Amino acid sequence: MRAMSEKKLDALVVTHMVNINYLCGFTGSSGALVARAPHWSFFTDGRYTAQAHQEVQGARVAIVKGPPLVGAAIAIGKAVRRAAVGIEADHLTVAGRRAFAASLPPRIRIRNTAGMVERLRMIKEPEEIERIRAAVLAGAALLKPALAAIAPGVSETGVAAEIEYAARQAGADGMSFETIVAAGPRSALPHGRASSQPIPRRGFVVMDFGVILAGYCSDMTRTVHVGQPPAAMRSMYEAVLEAQLAGIQAVRAGVDAGSVDRAARRTLRAVGMARFFTHSTGHGVGLEIHEAPRLARDGTDVLQAGMVITIEPGVYLPGKGGVRIEDMLVVTERGAQVLTPAPKELLVI
Amino acid sequence: MRAMSEKKLDALVVTHMVNINYLCGFTGSSGALVARAPHWSFFTDGRYTAQAHQEVQGARVAIVKGPPLVGAAIAIGKAVRRAAVGIEADHLTVAGRRAFAASLPPRIRIRNTAGMVERLRMIKEPEEIERIRAAVLAGAALLKPALAAIAPGVSETGVAAEIEYAARQAGADGMSFETIVAAGPRSALPHGRASSQPIPRRGFVVMDFGVILAGYCSDMTRTVHVGQPPAAMRSMYEAVLEAQLAGIQAVRAGVDAGSVDRAARRTLRAVGMARFFTHSTGHGVGLEIHEAPRLARDGTDVLQAGMVITIEPGVYLPGKGGVRIEDMLVVTERGAQVLTPAPKELLVI
Repeated sequence: MRAMSEKKLDALVVTHMVNINYLCGFTGSSGALVARAPHWSFFTDGRYTAQAHQEVQGARVAIVKGPPLVGAAIAIGKAVRRAAVGIEADHLTVAGRRAFAASLPPRIRIRNTAGMVERLRMIKEPEEIERIRAAVLAGAALLKPALAAIAPGVSETGVAAEIEYAARQAGADGMSFETIVAAGPRSALPHGRASSQPIPRRGFVVMDFGVILAGYCSDMTRTVHVGQPPAAMRSMYEAVLEAQLAGIQAVRAGVDAGSVDRAARRTLRAVGMARFFTHSTGHGVGLEIHEAPRLARDGTDVLQAGMVITIEPGVYLPGKGGVRIEDMLVVTERGAQVLTPAPKELLVI
Repeated sequence: MRAMSEKKLDALVVTHMVNINYLCGFTGSSGALVARAPHWSFFTDGRYTAQAHQEVQGARVAIVKGPPLVGAAIAIGKAVRRAAVGIEADHLTVAGRRAFAASLPPRIRIRNTAGMVERLRMIKEPEEIERIRAAVLAGAALLKPALAAIAPGVSETGVAAEIEYAARQAGADGMSFETIVAAGPRSALPHGRASSQPIPRRGFVVMDFGVILAGYCSDMTRTVHVGQPPAAMRSMYEAVLEAQLAGIQAVRAGVDAGSVDRAARRTLRAVGMARFFTHSTGHGVGLEIHEAPRLARDGTDVLQAGMVITIEPGVYLPGKGGVRIEDMLVVTERGAQVLTPAPKELLVI
């Protein structure tokens, strides 16, 4: 409400489902939340009558025929005279905005907003951190069946199958993104989703995976080597691990995201590998697998206590192989608390 | 190009990634395709350089810094003078349209379009139907491990785990939607995602699942009964099966989608169960799990040969249990070819 007042908004219409979930607890896939004093209203359709009454907190539930956003517009039109109403410009489609505007009296103005709810979501409540910790522990427990499955000749999807099977058996709602298992030369693809390719007799295997547990995501990456690694590959692994530790070391409330990225990158530059680190150092995690802040070279978000982020530098030699190591951690006043419990020394299988 | 000419568009900017995949084969997650005579152009960012050159057909690839849509706007501004450019209003966000407009000279007008590519996607090419058939067969093969897993006391997620594990082992890219396993009273929830609840000693178990194989989705539902079903439950099952067969029987090129829905609904009305059939009869399936046409009561799409649809009536008695039976089929000139091979008589476990 304070952010709305700063932007001189009389109401904010939230349509991004994750933001709706965050603000009022609804986990269905259709709805519009109108944040407006003195009380908030949540609009959804008949399919969600029972679910909305059961889940929604802090808002009155209204079941409407037709699109919830149109129902919201009609209700706003009845309730207020002149007003400025914010919409989420990064999520609402052009067609959605048109339908909304068409059902709103002309005396009510629509204002584009960006990231208003996402900024709140960046700082996690203690209860959220506990849920994230549970998701991280459940995710980290999948490493064991993954390692047991890795062998030359086994397909990448075969390893992914074991990871996902164990996740389901552990009660996860699902995976937080498409499981990455990338072996041999494919480990040089930063986003090498598990393919039908068999694991070669020798080479790196990058595994990047996470679960959704009670709505919150986990995210971790470990890289192992099948067969004895040549010295150059071992050095590459050590360089990435050093960069990852340097990134973690740089985390503290008050520093800007860019400086954390640069700390990891600097370590790799010292050994001539910075140009093979082709993505950013990390990102926020919560209800979504990728959320604010973004830990990139030009990142200007200032880290604050209670943010939950990943630190995940990688080095990728095209056609040869790659290494990435990723943990999740909570930003604290003095530094960081690493949530991911799994060891990081190079494992040879 | 014909549809563009009918709408007096000089170019269409496609931003919905599934539509981009359909039109030029790119499977990454960021890009903008500009359809314009004499040649099309595809804009993406540096992360996708190799992938774009490998996958894209029928369009020149341009790698740009910053958002691909902005790169597309700048290129359009350089290439044409006065022009009308279509955008996909159902997919482009308000912020995306603003960024696009800000990089486009004012003499170029933006026009909202809806469903231009989706209408093409409705009618599947023979090669697409073969891919869908392969996905349907791979999906149907998951029923066996699912049935083997069902027993009183086993959790719904335990059954989902077996389904998803078998899918991975069979080489699926992933599941086409969150697996539904809903047992006992939960079978009355039309979208009962697998939960930690154990399967009771007696009651229906609804399983609704599908795979993605080579980009295309499958979708099927079977309902079984654990323990001997009371006569009323058996009648309910038979009524849904009869409705499903009536729906399939009504499918033929030239009929409208609404009449297929009404055919299924009529059968249930005859036995007083129509009011417990609370969703529509089916939907198109292809690159997306839900696409056009929509087989709802008020559906006005006319079925055409080459459409691939589901027929999936259900009956849900709140607090007691539910039944849904779903097949995928190809619309033909004379009727329908059912793709899903699994039997549909009531199975008692």
